[in-house]
Amino acid sequence: MRAAIFNGPGKIELAERPDPRVQLPTDAVVRVVMGCVCGSDLWYFRGETPHTLGPIGHEFIGWVDQIGAEVRTLHPGDLVVAPFTYSDGTCANCRAGWSSNCVRGGSFGNRGMDGGQGEAVRVPFADATLVSVPRLGLSEATLRSLLTLSDVMCTGYHAAKSAGVKPDDVVAVVGDGAVGLCAVIAAKRLGAGRIIALSRNPNRQAMARRFGATEVLAERGDEAVTRILAMTDGLGVDATLECVGTGPSMKTAFDIARVGSIVGAIGAPHGVVVPIDTVIFRNVGLRGGVAPVRRYIPELLDDVLHGRIDPGRVFDLEVPLADVAEGYSAMNERRAIKSLVRIGPS
Amino acid sequence: MRAAIFNGPGKIELAERPDPRVQLPTDAVVRVVMGCVCGSDLWYFRGETPHTLGPIGHEFIGWVDQIGAEVRTLHPGDLVVAPFTYSDGTCANCRAGWSSNCVRGGSFGNRGMDGGQGEAVRVPFADATLVSVPRLGLSEATLRSLLTLSDVMCTGYHAAKSAGVKPDDVVAVVGDGAVGLCAVIAAKRLGAGRIIALSRNPNRQAMARRFGATEVLAERGDEAVTRILAMTDGLGVDATLECVGTGPSMKTAFDIARVGSIVGAIGAPHGVVVPIDTVIFRNVGLRGGVAPVRRYIPELLDDVLHGRIDPGRVFDLEVPLADVAEGYSAMNERRAIKSLVRIGPS
Repeated sequence: MRAAIFNGPGKIELAERPDPRVQLPTDAVVRVVMGCVCGSDLWYFRGETPHTLGPIGHEFIGWVDQIGAEVRTLHPGDLVVAPFTYSDGTCANCRAGWSSNCVRGGSFGNRGMDGGQGEAVRVPFADATLVSVPRLGLSEATLRSLLTLSDVMCTGYHAAKSAGVKPDDVVAVVGDGAVGLCAVIAAKRLGAGRIIALSRNPNRQAMARRFGATEVLAERGDEAVTRILAMTDGLGVDATLECVGTGPSMKTAFDIARVGSIVGAIGAPHGVVVPIDTVIFRNVGLRGGVAPVRRYIPELLDDVLHGRIDPGRVFDLEVPLADVAEGYSAMNERRAIKSLVRIGPS
Repeated sequence: MRAAIFNGPGKIELAERPDPRVQLPTDAVVRVVMGCVCGSDLWYFRGETPHTLGPIGHEFIGWVDQIGAEVRTLHPGDLVVAPFTYSDGTCANCRAGWSSNCVRGGSFGNRGMDGGQGEAVRVPFADATLVSVPRLGLSEATLRSLLTLSDVMCTGYHAAKSAGVKPDDVVAVVGDGAVGLCAVIAAKRLGAGRIIALSRNPNRQAMARRFGATEVLAERGDEAVTRILAMTDGLGVDATLECVGTGPSMKTAFDIARVGSIVGAIGAPHGVVVPIDTVIFRNVGLRGGVAPVRRYIPELLDDVLHGRIDPGRVFDLEVPLADVAEGYSAMNERRAIKSLVRIGPS
């Protein structure tokens, strides 16, 4: 099979790899229909964080090709959404709902595990990991939205859930990447009354509004803080969704957070310093992290299947697997919000 | 009247001050029965944080001596518990329950406000700030426990509430100061199944056990982490109450926190670095801060009046107002857990 391979910073290359096979009786092999490039993929692409050389991509949908002898709930031909981490479903963390922290789990497309930017993937703990989806009559738009459940939509949702968004809240979303845009969808789904999105890019601003942002600010840093405080009687917002993961974005998030509120943060941290004085003296909490995607997919699935949310719109570039490197470059240069990689027939 | 005055690091001195009077129609003047010394008082006593020179002490109980024309719910002679901050009860933060972040509020015993380590205190927003208590038949033990509602017991409770302690949880308390010991009481009150207290001081260990700790560890730092992980199947604890506020204590708290759990932190921060990688990669949250004492007093009052909790036991030294400096020194040298200052008749 063909698969995208990380050969070092800036080097995303297509290579032939052995077809994956069932190795353990709880495995399934999935033929990938679509994968995509994650904002977090850019960190190793740029050489800013280490990453094992080898297969990459942790987001995909596909259909079940083979199953191990102990797989009970999946059948060959099933269309499935894969969370970006596999998980056994039985460990203490999984039972508590923290599937991405499964003690026997791991991520696709890292440390030698098959990646979602390839034609097939061996999936451990297939029953517990994969979510099968009714296959008939799905539109292309629905398939694209299903793909976002693999990571980006569930991660945006985790930001909103972690920040405790509730009906009528004033919510701010820091970050206009694909996760930030999905966080807007999530905030709206949870009933936010106002959603303030921070973005200075016209395309992203438009998409934020389409997803439910009621106000879009082009300001950043202290200027954004000043404006948001002015828009909220000086109090700040009821819930802050921090969807970047850098020092300045975290600072902005805490500066606009209302007393007693929570910053929901999901970005892989780079140079983040948590302003502890704001935590303590303004009672602003911090929650979030690597999203427990497997827990959220069933929660969001109906909304996707019935078109009540359409996160698949975040894909504004499509490349065939052969051009996966362009998918990275386009996102890295901010020419694309998120790149879809078309891999096999659905 | 006589009052303790901060004249610079190490200099706590008694002085004559004008008797406080009602200045605004919402004021009351309270004659102080008992005050005490807070762990946070030691920071300026040691010269580690700045503090306005002048009256000090933010914890007290007393009786109402005078009321302003607009005070409706209090009457001269009422016994009252004062939260360590005054609050108007009507601002957005107060209405949301964050009384210690009142936009027109402030702390007693700072910036020229009368302190609880003095014979009388002018209390702004008296109706909203003070909690009156049935006066008849209160024992000395009950009075001492009422005094802890001024700060230390409610602050320990805030750590437990912030960490989301629920029935049957395994809870760890980092810090064996008076707040940490009160946090043990709070965890027990909220139904914790196991309470692991970290303390190497025999008196404090005994008090932690008396308050409900089921296990007491003398280890610190990495050794404590290793033991607690061993005691929890390698998972860590369901709720961590960080009652110190230093870098090492915060690190320990995050290291022993179970995936998906919350560190409830209430210590004034000194050199704290929040381990953001633990937040993100283990989904460990951080909540807490300056306790909204005014919200908690009514919640805890019945338990104190009926003797179901006895936080007043944290006072293991009593000094008359004339010897208030000794109350500071004893705590600073860890000869006392918490010093009660006897001021006037009840």
